[in-house]
Amino acid sequence: MKTVGVGLLGFGTVGTGVIRLLNQDQPQVEQSTGYHISIEKVLVNNLNKERKINIDKHLLTINPDDVLDNPNIDIIIEVMGGVEQTRNYLHRAFQNKKHVVTANKDLLAVYGPELLQAAKDHGCDLYYEASVAGGIPILRSLTDGLAADRIQKIIGIVNGTTNYILSKMSREPVSYDQALGEAQSLGFAEADPTSDVEGLDAARKMVILSHLAYSIPVDLDDVTIEGITGVEREDILYSQKLGYAIKLVGVTETTNGQIDIRVSPTLLPSTHPLAAVENENNAVYVYGEAVGETMFYGPGAGELPTATAVVSDLISVVRNLSLDVNGHHIFIPSKEKQCVSSETIVSRFFFRFHVKDEKGAFSKISNLLKDHGISLEKLIQEPLSDQVAEVAIITHEVNKVLFEKALRKLEALDVMIDVKNYYRVEGMKR
Amino acid sequence: MKTVGVGLLGFGTVGTGVIRLLNQDQPQVEQSTGYHISIEKVLVNNLNKERKINIDKHLLTINPDDVLDNPNIDIIIEVMGGVEQTRNYLHRAFQNKKHVVTANKDLLAVYGPELLQAAKDHGCDLYYEASVAGGIPILRSLTDGLAADRIQKIIGIVNGTTNYILSKMSREPVSYDQALGEAQSLGFAEADPTSDVEGLDAARKMVILSHLAYSIPVDLDDVTIEGITGVEREDILYSQKLGYAIKLVGVTETTNGQIDIRVSPTLLPSTHPLAAVENENNAVYVYGEAVGETMFYGPGAGELPTATAVVSDLISVVRNLSLDVNGHHIFIPSKEKQCVSSETIVSRFFFRFHVKDEKGAFSKISNLLKDHGISLEKLIQEPLSDQVAEVAIITHEVNKVLFEKALRKLEALDVMIDVKNYYRVEGMKR
Repeated sequence: MKTVGVGLLGFGTVGTGVIRLLNQDQPQVEQSTGYHISIEKVLVNNLNKERKINIDKHLLTINPDDVLDNPNIDIIIEVMGGVEQTRNYLHRAFQNKKHVVTANKDLLAVYGPELLQAAKDHGCDLYYEASVAGGIPILRSLTDGLAADRIQKIIGIVNGTTNYILSKMSREPVSYDQALGEAQSLGFAEADPTSDVEGLDAARKMVILSHLAYSIPVDLDDVTIEGITGVEREDILYSQKLGYAIKLVGVTETTNGQIDIRVSPTLLPSTHPLAAVENENNAVYVYGEAVGETMFYGPGAGELPTATAVVSDLISVVRNLSLDVNGHHIFIPSKEKQCVSSETIVSRFFFRFHVKDEKGAFSKISNLLKDHGISLEKLIQEPLSDQVAEVAIITHEVNKVLFEKALRKLEALDVMIDVKNYYRVEGMKR
Repeated sequence: MKTVGVGLLGFGTVGTGVIRLLNQDQPQVEQSTGYHISIEKVLVNNLNKERKINIDKHLLTINPDDVLDNPNIDIIIEVMGGVEQTRNYLHRAFQNKKHVVTANKDLLAVYGPELLQAAKDHGCDLYYEASVAGGIPILRSLTDGLAADRIQKIIGIVNGTTNYILSKMSREPVSYDQALGEAQSLGFAEADPTSDVEGLDAARKMVILSHLAYSIPVDLDDVTIEGITGVEREDILYSQKLGYAIKLVGVTETTNGQIDIRVSPTLLPSTHPLAAVENENNAVYVYGEAVGETMFYGPGAGELPTATAVVSDLISVVRNLSLDVNGHHIFIPSKEKQCVSSETIVSRFFFRFHVKDEKGAFSKISNLLKDHGISLEKLIQEPLSDQVAEVAIITHEVNKVLFEKALRKLEALDVMIDVKNYYRVEGMKR
């Protein structure tokens, strides 16, 4: 049997999972590819650190050259993370005719098109299924399974940390801070959760999905990003009363060739399949012109789910090797980028406010909304005290700029105590 | 640009969708494959039948040789259905070195391994994504996206007709016959719905999924099949009260190398993602050893969803042509088949009965159950009249043979009026 040499850059959680899977599934991998997989070198930070699995100490190195320039290595698995240095390493890998499998969403969201071009120029493979939604094979589904369709819109719950926090707040009387604390103690949130809770992690994944779905080379700067740190439990409770769940979703959609890409807490109808995605799970909901609506659900992170995606990619590279067709499956976003103008965005909105409970208060508010062309789909009012009422409203579709202008005017009304949060509302259909 | 010739066997709903997609997406297909797709011939039953889309009449033929022996045709799309004649046509296609894309689950469930071997022997492709769960790219996900994992169990809602009927009965006070009538009038059920409602259609799809998931060449005869014609609305109502939904699911699982494959109405926890799959939609829930639980959701049938799967397969064949690697992606189930013995099957069960509401009745029943090693997880009793109570029970895990024996003894008790239906119960985890 022929042997293919594999090197790892990084030996953290995902790297450990990859070695674990390869050890245990070697016979299966050999049967499905015809190759024996040989781990040749693993780049680590610390040679003496205790490892969770047994590994021959001679395989470990702190010198990246031992991987990048190693003539016995055909395929490099990049699970070290980071952006600038890792980018340089991958360029060197391609120059040395090594194929790459990576789980690095930060890198792909920023340098994806550049690295894909470099891989193609050198006849190398670059696979990155694990970078989006961990164990869910969503990237392949877009490039192969739905290849015949025109994707119109994708809504993704692509960050497990924020989905865990919002699920928790939906079920139990806990604040954002309490839910975050529990997520941290369970390992679903990092000590510094900023990139998750501020929506940046989800934005990176939506950039990668947009590349594949529309072939449009969007940048991270094109994404409108809003995190969940401001979400209050009252927002969730009123949403539930109105028949909705609040989820942090990424949305990417094209209309007339213009792309709109955003990440924000958003109301989804409680009967929408995405509303049932609980805890740390991920799901990607795809609207195709011909296929209609499909959803891909599963674990978005974790050692073995992510390692499964990495090793499945590795198997694809080895199959390509056996057929001598490496570098032919590279898909580089090639269309011209046209972002939708923020002035033209139309949406339904949820908003919540505290108002003085006095005669005429409500007609002042409804007149103001009417004057801005805002009509109401659903409304709940509940007393907070003798003098104060809490109101939550879902509007019909309205121009976003107009809506935000109306909110500022609402805040200035004498009867208004406080305008709380507002969020976009998605429907059942596109 | 090079041209690839395509012939169609059949021009019904799916065939029409394929031509429609190819007409409208020709530029996209050309860009993604580098080939122009030319429809050369379409086998029909009736040359003069009115068609839903414009097609050059000269392309139509009633002579299969015009497709099967046509030197201008490289790829055949089989959407005529049927088993024996179609099998012969595909063998001829492979002998003539033509690649095949098919949506024919009946054929694949019976002659899948034989046809795959024939394709491989002649260096031809045979793709059949559309045969299971219409627009959901589940077959590719099993062979590629989850290639590194060991699949342990699959639960599929793979028949839209029965899911529509059971959804309808869950929401509205209609009987099975009424729900079936509505499904027929909406086009979700055929005039003769036998193969759907008796579970045969779902069984065929579970056979195909088992081939890919386990590489075990199961036959249709290995599937234990029970349809939905006996499901009563009361079964659904009591299930809901106990926190469950009833769905017609196919289940295929392996334990210690033995396979258990079945189709039956089954209780799923109402919080299970499959329980939220409503109406004519399909979903396939996969339990992988490493990846954990993933679900693939979408439309299971329909002209354009199914055509999307067919044309995505066609694009794969054309990409293979451009790389000269046809016939290399064929996956033939190769392991030895060992079916689980029905005597060893263990499950939780739901059952419902009518009992005389008299002193000591319940202790007779509970003693009988205890004597058969059956313990109860949940129970509801409601009065039907002064003399009669209706009882629904969910058991803990019990041997199926013992359980069925206990049911027969229950029926013989003097206090028992009638033992109604019983169903297996799935949990949240494997």
